[in-house]
Amino acid sequence: MTPIANFDELLQRFHSCSQKISIAVVCPGDDATTGAMEQVLCHGTATFHAICVGSPDKTLQELHTQYPDRITIHHVASAEEASAIGVRLVHESQADILMKGTVNTDTLLREVLNKECGLLPEGHVLSHATLVLAPAYGKMLLFSDAAVIPRPTLPQLQAMVRYDLEICRKLGVSRPQVALIHFSEKTNPKFPHTIDYLTLIQMAGEGAFGETDIAGPMDVKTACDRHSAEVKGIDSTVTGNADILIFPNLEASNTFYKTVSFFGGATMAGMITGAKVPIVLPSRADSMQSKLYSMALACVAGIQN
Amino acid sequence: MTPIANFDELLQRFHSCSQKISIAVVCPGDDATTGAMEQVLCHGTATFHAICVGSPDKTLQELHTQYPDRITIHHVASAEEASAIGVRLVHESQADILMKGTVNTDTLLREVLNKECGLLPEGHVLSHATLVLAPAYGKMLLFSDAAVIPRPTLPQLQAMVRYDLEICRKLGVSRPQVALIHFSEKTNPKFPHTIDYLTLIQMAGEGAFGETDIAGPMDVKTACDRHSAEVKGIDSTVTGNADILIFPNLEASNTFYKTVSFFGGATMAGMITGAKVPIVLPSRADSMQSKLYSMALACVAGIQN
Repeated sequence: MTPIANFDELLQRFHSCSQKISIAVVCPGDDATTGAMEQVLCHGTATFHAICVGSPDKTLQELHTQYPDRITIHHVASAEEASAIGVRLVHESQADILMKGTVNTDTLLREVLNKECGLLPEGHVLSHATLVLAPAYGKMLLFSDAAVIPRPTLPQLQAMVRYDLEICRKLGVSRPQVALIHFSEKTNPKFPHTIDYLTLIQMAGEGAFGETDIAGPMDVKTACDRHSAEVKGIDSTVTGNADILIFPNLEASNTFYKTVSFFGGATMAGMITGAKVPIVLPSRADSMQSKLYSMALACVAGIQN
Repeated sequence: MTPIANFDELLQRFHSCSQKISIAVVCPGDDATTGAMEQVLCHGTATFHAICVGSPDKTLQELHTQYPDRITIHHVASAEEASAIGVRLVHESQADILMKGTVNTDTLLREVLNKECGLLPEGHVLSHATLVLAPAYGKMLLFSDAAVIPRPTLPQLQAMVRYDLEICRKLGVSRPQVALIHFSEKTNPKFPHTIDYLTLIQMAGEGAFGETDIAGPMDVKTACDRHSAEVKGIDSTVTGNADILIFPNLEASNTFYKTVSFFGGATMAGMITGAKVPIVLPSRADSMQSKLYSMALACVAGIQN
């Protein structure tokens, strides 16, 4: 499989999917979410089905009239109940993807994390992956974690690497290159994540993560700009060629997210990783396009090989 | 004074300076440093004088022959001795700016931090400021600290704000807008810098920093993109309009530095703040242009009003 090179190709992969995909949307009714669903439906993604849980607005009701077989509506007034039903649909394998509409993130995540009927398998950790296409870089880039884990521990870093590798392979990258981000190339016990990075690299060398190369610590530019790496005299298959960036804390990953978006003109999509199924958890203010891309990312990531 | 809008205007301000400026260059002899000095000299900055301490290479000796009155050479073989002499020249007020050539950063900083004859006044902290011009943003942006302080404490944050405000005012911004960076708008004791931010804002309200507006916590996009701030419903003179960004840790500030540079196509200059005089401390691999801009920034920042 050729790696997916941009968001148009991601949408094509999504649209041409031969497996049935059901997405449970909790509290839809905002224009961006409904618009994203409409885009998927009108592009003839024959296998796509949306189960909307909440109070549908007029636009969603019209969309339902247009595509009666492809949209199911559960009329539920409270956001709490809608969250519980949405999560239960996934728990009972009636839905393959969970998506947040206008519900508050905390309300939905409370149900996701419910120990009895939630969506977090034993031993898993919830994390977040963002897919970036930036004009300055020649390929798509996945990074974690700009949303969930503020200070990842070694087990959490391991989980983030595993989840991101899985997504990256679904995007067609057979041997993903993983850069472990820091402000320099030096490991230093004062910055414990740099010591954790050594463990991750050792594990990768022992085959714990499958086909991949993992290197670091290194900074963002060394990871993405081969010239910068050459000037520093760093020789690795990862430098200047990263598919995945793993950040040491949420301040740094959020700074990357916001800077590559505003200053770098990048297009982004995001999803929650580590749960039983991919979860689309956009900001309420995200655009229709952004929600569509995130939905496509989650669906492609959720396809069974 | 109109704010300096780009690096050409910064160079013009530097070139048209009426005060005598002496710069002590420790271990010159690399093409980029010599080239930057040549650029300054050939642009007729009549007040500029370079005191070169180290082993001059052929190019520097030729430049010395061309500008015998504007360049002094102290022939010193060892980097340690060159550092000590360079720092002493500043200590004795024979030089107004200190600049690193090919000497190792640690070697030079050891002399700068020397308690008896170093350059750090009692109660000061050494920090770093980077000046950025990015195509996506309508004005120059100063940020700290991408080089010296990994985890700034409240007194260090106060110092960073003071130093950056001083530079920003030298660049012609009469009431600089300061954004205190975090991954969200919420203060949270789990992230102690967000509590420190409240103190900084309170101090600013009481006039401790002079003419300025300070706001936060906020993310980089909220600080620089008015639309993003409006969507979030945040109303402040700082949002979308920041002149200064203060980062909570070195991983985040380095990520901003590298991302705005590589992905954002930004031009940058940097200097060490907090010492008796501005110190230019470029990476050895920095380009001639980058060293020239950093030299100009330090000189403009070092001009007495």
